[in-house]
Amino acid sequence: MKRNLKLILTYDGTDFFGWQIQPGRRTVQGELKKAIHTMTGEDTNIIGAGRTDAGAHAIGQVANFETNSKIPACAFQRGLNSLLPDDIVVLGCQEVPPDFHARYSAKKKAYRYIVLNRPLPDPLKRNYVWHVKNPLYIKAMNESCRRIIGEHDFSSFMASGSNVKTTCRTVYRALWKREGELHIFEIEANGFLRHMVRNIVGTIVCVGLRKIRPAEIDTILAKKDRSAAASTAPAQGLYLISVTY
Amino acid sequence: MKRNLKLILTYDGTDFFGWQIQPGRRTVQGELKKAIHTMTGEDTNIIGAGRTDAGAHAIGQVANFETNSKIPACAFQRGLNSLLPDDIVVLGCQEVPPDFHARYSAKKKAYRYIVLNRPLPDPLKRNYVWHVKNPLYIKAMNESCRRIIGEHDFSSFMASGSNVKTTCRTVYRALWKREGELHIFEIEANGFLRHMVRNIVGTIVCVGLRKIRPAEIDTILAKKDRSAAASTAPAQGLYLISVTY
Repeated sequence: MKRNLKLILTYDGTDFFGWQIQPGRRTVQGELKKAIHTMTGEDTNIIGAGRTDAGAHAIGQVANFETNSKIPACAFQRGLNSLLPDDIVVLGCQEVPPDFHARYSAKKKAYRYIVLNRPLPDPLKRNYVWHVKNPLYIKAMNESCRRIIGEHDFSSFMASGSNVKTTCRTVYRALWKREGELHIFEIEANGFLRHMVRNIVGTIVCVGLRKIRPAEIDTILAKKDRSAAASTAPAQGLYLISVTY
Repeated sequence: MKRNLKLILTYDGTDFFGWQIQPGRRTVQGELKKAIHTMTGEDTNIIGAGRTDAGAHAIGQVANFETNSKIPACAFQRGLNSLLPDDIVVLGCQEVPPDFHARYSAKKKAYRYIVLNRPLPDPLKRNYVWHVKNPLYIKAMNESCRRIIGEHDFSSFMASGSNVKTTCRTVYRALWKREGELHIFEIEANGFLRHMVRNIVGTIVCVGLRKIRPAEIDTILAKKDRSAAASTAPAQGLYLISVTY
């Protein structure tokens, strides 16, 4: 009988073309598939909770796959960690019921976005933050966050060309915190549209730069049109933090 | 008349073969030399306060060079930052007296070393910390630090084959602090022998793992023999923090 295994993963997205397998590209799903094949000889379909973009990172990505192998979960974790490249680490592995689906069973997801706010870039953080030179006004940024919390149609913050059943999502929390030169944004929702976090960050950073007033977030949401919002924040500041089931 | 310019530099050492120019290798000094040549047409000798190892980082490296160019210091900084690759940033540039020498004028240097202490590695920090799996006993580590503070002959912590006038150095402070899973070591001295910080860290981590008693540091120092100390900690956890003149 097939077993269903759940993985908790962390990875540095810098050298990946994102989560999803693409021919001729180095991807997280592709590296996992190779390592599982080495351990079991099986060709598995690995389901990820979120399809992180090229350059975006994960601290608590969740995935699952089916296997006929009898290898215990903890031995699977050790085996994968010894086979995987050092920019992916399996933080946990456990057997789950057959109906567990990393993507469809997810109730909530949380993302973090890190902005470095100082005149000069930091070479040590260049792959891990978005560098914004001009001073950010965090009070206005959090005022615009409050307008995003709750159930909304997030079409204005969805990558154009996306094809989804509904563009409504419920945001449970969204907050910026300042830690020295870093502005750290955390957002939790029942789900995210494609590029939704990066588009929200791009727009809220414009609020922080006083190019947009906080109240305009309401207008942008109401327009249900991607061109109403500001440009997408770069992928390297984005982290998938956790998935709740 | 030649002007003497002082630079404050930060860089990510991951993709460099260290500070010092070597034929056919990508080095920090080499990249700076190229950028200065582009700006001035001059072949300059760039003096660095510390010759950081391959893979080691800098937050406040200091360098100086002589130039006939009339470009103001602030324009030099902007120009270099636009020409340099994004893993080097010039944090400051100023004209200094002709006798200022980044290396020989230095009175004190401070280094930081970061250890990640948890069972599993962190892919996001793999180039920025030393991953030590087994729990470290920080109290014993700080007890051994106290034995290093002051003036000592540090031969036992010097890379073998080094050729220096004196192997005595004065350590002003040396302390480990814990921040969650990170153990952060800071050490300041009037100067450092080759690999001295990495050799001290390698040995103190052995104390933290209870392989060596703190009091044995005295014996290791007294032996004046590299083979008395433990192995060298890896370069990627090391940061040159500041240089005092």
